[in-house]
Amino acid sequence: MCFENKLHEECGVFGIFSKKGEVLSSSYYAMYALQHRGQESCGLAINHQGVIAGHKDTGLVNEVFSKERLQTMGEGKMAIAHCRYGSKRTISRSNAQPLVVNHLKGNMAVCYNGNITNTAKLKEKFELAGGIFHSTTAVEVIAYTITSQRLQSDSIEEAIKKAIDQLEGAYSMVLMSAQKLIAARDPYGFRPLCLGETEDGYVIASESCALEAAGAVFIRDIRPGEIVVISEEGLTSIQTPAKEKSALCAFEFIYFARPDSVIEGASVHGARLRAGSFLALEHPVQADVVVGVPDSGIDAAIGYARQSGIQYGQGFVKNRYIGRTFIQPGQRQRQDSIRIKLNVIAATVKDKRVVLVDDSIVRGSTSKVIVGLLKEAGAKEVHLRLSSPPFLYPCFYGTDIDSSEHLLAYNHTIEEMRDMIGVDSLGFLSTDAVGMLAENATCGFCDACFTGNYPSKPFDDEDAFKYEKKL
Amino acid sequence: MCFENKLHEECGVFGIFSKKGEVLSSSYYAMYALQHRGQESCGLAINHQGVIAGHKDTGLVNEVFSKERLQTMGEGKMAIAHCRYGSKRTISRSNAQPLVVNHLKGNMAVCYNGNITNTAKLKEKFELAGGIFHSTTAVEVIAYTITSQRLQSDSIEEAIKKAIDQLEGAYSMVLMSAQKLIAARDPYGFRPLCLGETEDGYVIASESCALEAAGAVFIRDIRPGEIVVISEEGLTSIQTPAKEKSALCAFEFIYFARPDSVIEGASVHGARLRAGSFLALEHPVQADVVVGVPDSGIDAAIGYARQSGIQYGQGFVKNRYIGRTFIQPGQRQRQDSIRIKLNVIAATVKDKRVVLVDDSIVRGSTSKVIVGLLKEAGAKEVHLRLSSPPFLYPCFYGTDIDSSEHLLAYNHTIEEMRDMIGVDSLGFLSTDAVGMLAENATCGFCDACFTGNYPSKPFDDEDAFKYEKKL
Amino acid sequence: MCFENKLHEECGVFGIFSKKGEVLSSSYYAMYALQHRGQESCGLAINHQGVIAGHKDTGLVNEVFSKERLQTMGEGKMAIAHCRYGSKRTISRSNAQPLVVNHLKGNMAVCYNGNITNTAKLKEKFELAGGIFHSTTAVEVIAYTITSQRLQSDSIEEAIKKAIDQLEGAYSMVLMSAQKLIAARDPYGFRPLCLGETEDGYVIASESCALEAAGAVFIRDIRPGEIVVISEEGLTSIQTPAKEKSALCAFEFIYFARPDSVIEGASVHGARLRAGSFLALEHPVQADVVVGVPDSGIDAAIGYARQSGIQYGQGFVKNRYIGRTFIQPGQRQRQDSIRIKLNVIAATVKDKRVVLVDDSIVRGSTSKVIVGLLKEAGAKEVHLRLSSPPFLYPCFYGTDIDSSEHLLAYNHTIEEMRDMIGVDSLGFLSTDAVGMLAENATCGFCDACFTGNYPSKPFDDEDAFKYEKKL
Amino acid sequence: MCFENKLHEECGVFGIFSKKGEVLSSSYYAMYALQHRGQESCGLAINHQGVIAGHKDTGLVNEVFSKERLQTMGEGKMAIAHCRYGSKRTISRSNAQPLVVNHLKGNMAVCYNGNITNTAKLKEKFELAGGIFHSTTAVEVIAYTITSQRLQSDSIEEAIKKAIDQLEGAYSMVLMSAQKLIAARDPYGFRPLCLGETEDGYVIASESCALEAAGAVFIRDIRPGEIVVISEEGLTSIQTPAKEKSALCAFEFIYFARPDSVIEGASVHGARLRAGSFLALEHPVQADVVVGVPDSGIDAAIGYARQSGIQYGQGFVKNRYIGRTFIQPGQRQRQDSIRIKLNVIAATVKDKRVVLVDDSIVRGSTSKVIVGLLKEAGAKEVHLRLSSPPFLYPCFYGTDIDSSEHLLAYNHTIEEMRDMIGVDSLGFLSTDAVGMLAENATCGFCDACFTGNYPSKPFDDEDAFKYEKKL
Repeated sequence: MCFENKLHEECGVFGIFSKKGEVLSSSYYAMYALQHRGQESCGLAINHQGVIAGHKDTGLVNEVFSKERLQTMGEGKMAIAHCRYGSKRTISRSNAQPLVVNHLKGNMAVCYNGNITNTAKLKEKFELAGGIFHSTTAVEVIAYTITSQRLQSDSIEEAIKKAIDQLEGAYSMVLMSAQKLIAARDPYGFRPLCLGETEDGYVIASESCALEAAGAVFIRDIRPGEIVVISEEGLTSIQTPAKEKSALCAFEFIYFARPDSVIEGASVHGARLRAGSFLALEHPVQADVVVGVPDSGIDAAIGYARQSGIQYGQGFVKNRYIGRTFIQPGQRQRQDSIRIKLNVIAATVKDKRVVLVDDSIVRGSTSKVIVGLLKEAGAKEVHLRLSSPPFLYPCFYGTDIDSSEHLLAYNHTIEEMRDMIGVDSLGFLSTDAVGMLAENATCGFCDACFTGNYPSKPFDDEDAFKYEKKL
Repeated sequence: MCFENKLHEECGVFGIFSKKGEVLSSSYYAMYALQHRGQESCGLAINHQGVIAGHKDTGLVNEVFSKERLQTMGEGKMAIAHCRYGSKRTISRSNAQPLVVNHLKGNMAVCYNGNITNTAKLKEKFELAGGIFHSTTAVEVIAYTITSQRLQSDSIEEAIKKAIDQLEGAYSMVLMSAQKLIAARDPYGFRPLCLGETEDGYVIASESCALEAAGAVFIRDIRPGEIVVISEEGLTSIQTPAKEKSALCAFEFIYFARPDSVIEGASVHGARLRAGSFLALEHPVQADVVVGVPDSGIDAAIGYARQSGIQYGQGFVKNRYIGRTFIQPGQRQRQDSIRIKLNVIAATVKDKRVVLVDDSIVRGSTSKVIVGLLKEAGAKEVHLRLSSPPFLYPCFYGTDIDSSEHLLAYNHTIEEMRDMIGVDSLGFLSTDAVGMLAENATCGFCDACFTGNYPSKPFDDEDAFKYEKKL
Repeated sequence: MCFENKLHEECGVFGIFSKKGEVLSSSYYAMYALQHRGQESCGLAINHQGVIAGHKDTGLVNEVFSKERLQTMGEGKMAIAHCRYGSKRTISRSNAQPLVVNHLKGNMAVCYNGNITNTAKLKEKFELAGGIFHSTTAVEVIAYTITSQRLQSDSIEEAIKKAIDQLEGAYSMVLMSAQKLIAARDPYGFRPLCLGETEDGYVIASESCALEAAGAVFIRDIRPGEIVVISEEGLTSIQTPAKEKSALCAFEFIYFARPDSVIEGASVHGARLRAGSFLALEHPVQADVVVGVPDSGIDAAIGYARQSGIQYGQGFVKNRYIGRTFIQPGQRQRQDSIRIKLNVIAATVKDKRVVLVDDSIVRGSTSKVIVGLLKEAGAKEVHLRLSSPPFLYPCFYGTDIDSSEHLLAYNHTIEEMRDMIGVDSLGFLSTDAVGMLAENATCGFCDACFTGNYPSKPFDDEDAFKYEKKL
Repeated sequence: MCFENKLHEECGVFGIFSKKGEVLSSSYYAMYALQHRGQESCGLAINHQGVIAGHKDTGLVNEVFSKERLQTMGEGKMAIAHCRYGSKRTISRSNAQPLVVNHLKGNMAVCYNGNITNTAKLKEKFELAGGIFHSTTAVEVIAYTITSQRLQSDSIEEAIKKAIDQLEGAYSMVLMSAQKLIAARDPYGFRPLCLGETEDGYVIASESCALEAAGAVFIRDIRPGEIVVISEEGLTSIQTPAKEKSALCAFEFIYFARPDSVIEGASVHGARLRAGSFLALEHPVQADVVVGVPDSGIDAAIGYARQSGIQYGQGFVKNRYIGRTFIQPGQRQRQDSIRIKLNVIAATVKDKRVVLVDDSIVRGSTSKVIVGLLKEAGAKEVHLRLSSPPFLYPCFYGTDIDSSEHLLAYNHTIEEMRDMIGVDSLGFLSTDAVGMLAENATCGFCDACFTGNYPSKPFDDEDAFKYEKKL
């Protein structure tokens, strides 16, 4: 589902190098393929023989890039693109990416996905040296870090290598200088980033689904700590020291990524089916039908149904036309925003014992409404199963789980939550199962939001100190 | 699915009467709930104490009705609304509905769903009397027919009663005079129309899903030949002679209606599950997974899976953000419009024998591309199953199956089609099964597009004469 | 000036016939040239080999006709266009012109400038015969009148000839059938209409300035009661009986028409200079500078200066960028809408005795503000001179002088008005002078708004009877 | 006039301090009043209790600031605003002003009018220190210069004082920190800047006409080299060393400024009348009428007429509705863009010897077309008089006279120009007269574009060295 109080990823990134100089339509389609990772703003910067120009704004891809806009953008050999989610405070055009800057040794466009945990410290350092900041995004800090190193380095890749020593936290970044397209991933590999090949060049993207949209074939994931440099001379890789244990965000598999993407060798769809299966094993129940909350709960619901032997059914119709509809406040209280967007298929649930599968619970209010819809439609029992453990800790690596106080699970027991949401039983996926979702994946996972085990110390944020294990 | 060469319904209609004078938000939400029946234009007319004013334009509801527009529309005790699909020739603002007209005895707003088969004859009659026409839609002919009768009648309902004798073909109409909200359905009942009740009035809509969106509770379907009149005095019904055997469009159950709607007592979702079950019985095959083409093939795929015992799976991700995206012509031929909108989940189909379920085949080109996507993703076999029989005859009752020549099935055998689409086997639902889809439904069905058995002679259209049974 | 309570003309009309089939850009430019006659809505209909299609909407030409819109309109051999002013009640898309209608003998597009005084009677007649009306404009009544005659006529021009017998009031109309472009002017010739010639055809327009914009050379004015028919066979003229004494609206020369237009052989600019000269003779005053209210008072101010020998000066700067600016209500009361749009050049008026020339006074409130601005800027004396007599009677021929009660001059003596506006002296042009403005013009003039001498009895409007000469 | 090859000023600036916290509507109206100084982009930044937020974009004020936009902007105690002209290369949103930046000691918004001649050198310095640049405008260099000084200064005003030592060239700037509104003008006073007072605060603007629009009363001009600081504590002035001889751009009086503005004690309108008078004395001719090219030639034409005794007349109508109209390329070559926008009043010029007054000649092509229009309309003779001397040298202080090669006068004698433009005689204002236009003005003037006497050495631009006196 995609209602207001869902979790939000911070971004999707994309980059392309094309010897033939055909980057526009591939970039455009790739932005659509990454739109699920960020719907607040988007942007595209194209390198026209060394001159970088672009367009970015708040809005969806089809709002920001009209036919007329595309026609005026021109072609080039390189481009980078970005889709962004921003918290309410920071939705503004000046925070959209890519960021295009000019510096002593040339110009550069950069965009990233993640969160730099020492942003404040780095910013202070640059301001002390006279630097000025136009935006409130960490990407400007990243740009400063790289350009300040660039002055003392022979090449942009060397500058990035040095910058990696200074940047803490999570980042999968794509950047472009006059001559090179470069991708880099933090040493923990918090956010996904992969590499594809086209007939005449390379493509880099947050998810493999964007490679396909750009007409590229998947080659491999970019490794934690790796810098990939693409130019007319071809592709070279620089491996900086990675952490012993990588820490890919587990929620990428549970909710963020698109089902058809493959991350670290594991199918996202497959991981969700497995989540459903584990749920069925960990929280079995006698029931007549398993339904998923569209769209993100469907896969796990099928997995639960297969494992349990209970019939899978379509419980809901989601209205695809609503989008960012203006919901008229008022008269009929029953018509709140969820009811307009989501409709129960009564034929599926009436007089049935229903297993309802969703991906997670943040504040619980959405779940409560959905359960109410099922009961109104005649469901005899509703058993809620979540394909993730309870959220207990904030995320400092690019997901907007901001503070424990706002998390239902932090303040309540399972039984209290069951009662508040109004279901007959409630079951969460275990944290042990989380580590097993991505079948055959070679990486480690970050499950800090469930366990409080932060892979890196998030020094910069004083709030971080107050979180201790509660369980 | 909703690609270009899908069939299109002509419209969705809505009407509301509220004693409290709260009709705006209900009408707005109802239009969203009917949007699947027509995405080319939409409109809303509100009765402000006898003065009818409104707004209509080409575009989706959220394009035509901005926040600012809604705020200027004001409230009233009655409103009617419409969503329209128009063929390419007729997409224009002047063809959008509702049509608001002034005549001797007052003013009137009217909209309808269906097709008047004697439009040309009626139009000629009115033109001979000096009438002028502003649009190319039959709704203007309907308005003339009613107002010309109105001059010799004591009431609007009497005029409509007489008009029904003159109008031939399919129509579910909603109209509004200064004092009354009126609904009428043709004597065959080709198109659905139902009645709901709110706390302070009544609601009429093409589908029950729009009743819910308007905060109303379903009462019953409007009967073929019935005129329902709603005013301050309450609701009265006039039953004009209906045909012995009603003829509800079977394709409403197969594709047009929303799964959560209930028509003539039968669940649309249930009918689609049944279609899948019949398909499994009529065209069994050894396979590993059943996938449906989203969104309309999903329900039948689940039905096929349940009946056959073959596992149901999610075969595709549909990109929800694309909408009416400008598809850049060009460079990379592989990126045609379907590939951008629809992505295969390889994990589901790789190395599998796949049963692919869709609702119908018009020209076959879309099916061919989708099958190609599955094969590229590694499907070993693809067995296509359609939850409707082959289209052989044009529809004269409001669906745009215009001419046999353009129908793949009219010109080719099943085997030829199988070969052209590139599947390992191909099976259509039988016409016998069509009549059994709507479980417990009390009405008869029109299956003329499959059988050529037109319930009414479509005199007016000379083309109609050339269609004879082919089988 | 163009502030809210200025008088408004009802329209500008345009038609073109081009053998080469190049009508789009000429029509577009002509609409710009006629924009001063109506800024509420505009429209263009093009005849594509007998099929008439067009576009119209509320807004200025550059708002309604975007580049993209123009590119999709296509070319044809004929087109008609319209710019419209509508009173507040009637600004809506459905009232924009041209009106395109289909009738028994073909299709037709029509637009007009003026006012049909027996609209209500004609409308009732057509409604009694079953006719329905989509709009509240008289143009729909004109279309009905012509098409009802067309049924009993051999040609469209014969139908128009008969329609002229039925239509009362003022009209300069342009219409287009499948094969012909036709212009007609009422027997009194209330509104201007002229004919021009291009290399490959003809052009018809409300004013000669639009001929030039369309690349045409002025030939002559269309005569009162004349019907001009243009087709592949060339141009023919039908003269229906005209009134003994024509009655061109005198206000066309005083305010409505563009200064570079020539009407009935007289220069509009020349007529305004003459108005100023007469004013100087009729209302002399000792003063230091003559200034005009931009834009419409400038010409008469120059005329006054020349005749009186007092120096002409630029008294104001008008802000050209404001347009339909949203004027923030509120805080600083001094910044009302006039003060934002019009700024005094203090250097011109400070410590001077100023003759202020404007074209007319409707309610007097605008004049009062402007005089206040001059005094604030240091003018010692302000002597207001109007290049028209006081408005005393409503206009029934297409100008929105609706009711005597709202006219300052109807309710007050000259001395009262002088006091209310706050000027040192006040002088209006005499009605005798009005008849002499258009030098060498061959027509008669309507001065009913000044004198109450209505050329035709405006039967249909009961309000009309109550107006009797007051003086 | 305002056709393509007119000269363009770089900007208009505005700032307001209001104790009551009412700055929005004043700023909005002030932008309209300054719109003539820049039509490419505009912007407004408001200080909400120390937090600075704003909006800027390419487009006119009424395009960039919709009603909805204004309503969301909120109020504050301070605001600065800007209208910008940019050469074609630099029209982009990222170059719009004000520039809002964050730095170590707080945040700041800044905008300016002029041109920093050592931009490249300063930029290099900051880039060497690791600075990055987001735009290509000098305002970012100004911001860096001030913030780098701010780190070593006790106050923002001290930082600006030091920055003035580093910034070379022309600048009238307005800036805003969390607590202060500050205005500064370069030591030469190239561009105008003035101070006004309101009931509850102060206003700063490029021209006095914007003071009035903001409801303020003019106090005085900001002096060359002066820094004015406005805060809750009131207004303080810091005078940094000014140049012995100030150098206000003479073209402000001739063309850039609005006629109702008063600069350095002299009326702009008055200066233009004087220019006309001098022209009449320096280049007398026997003629019948004097006409001015609207809008900028009108005042000087009146001055010429008064001095010469030849009658002043209205020669042209300018179409106010065209704006940024899309001019359809093509068919009728005679309808080029000037002819659509500018129409001759034939009655004024036919069979007359015409003195045509315009402000200047850049390339001469526009003048040629206008003269052609007059001759077509029947003018017997056309004598062109320009209220400025010939342009011979580029401007480095904020006007886009970029290179001598493109200046007609640089490459041709007066006689050659006369012949090319097709006039009977041609006369330019003398450079001596330029210094006498602004009656009683206390400042010196820059006339470098006419004489090559650059007040300051424009070191940074190597092109500058190649310009030597030609005469």
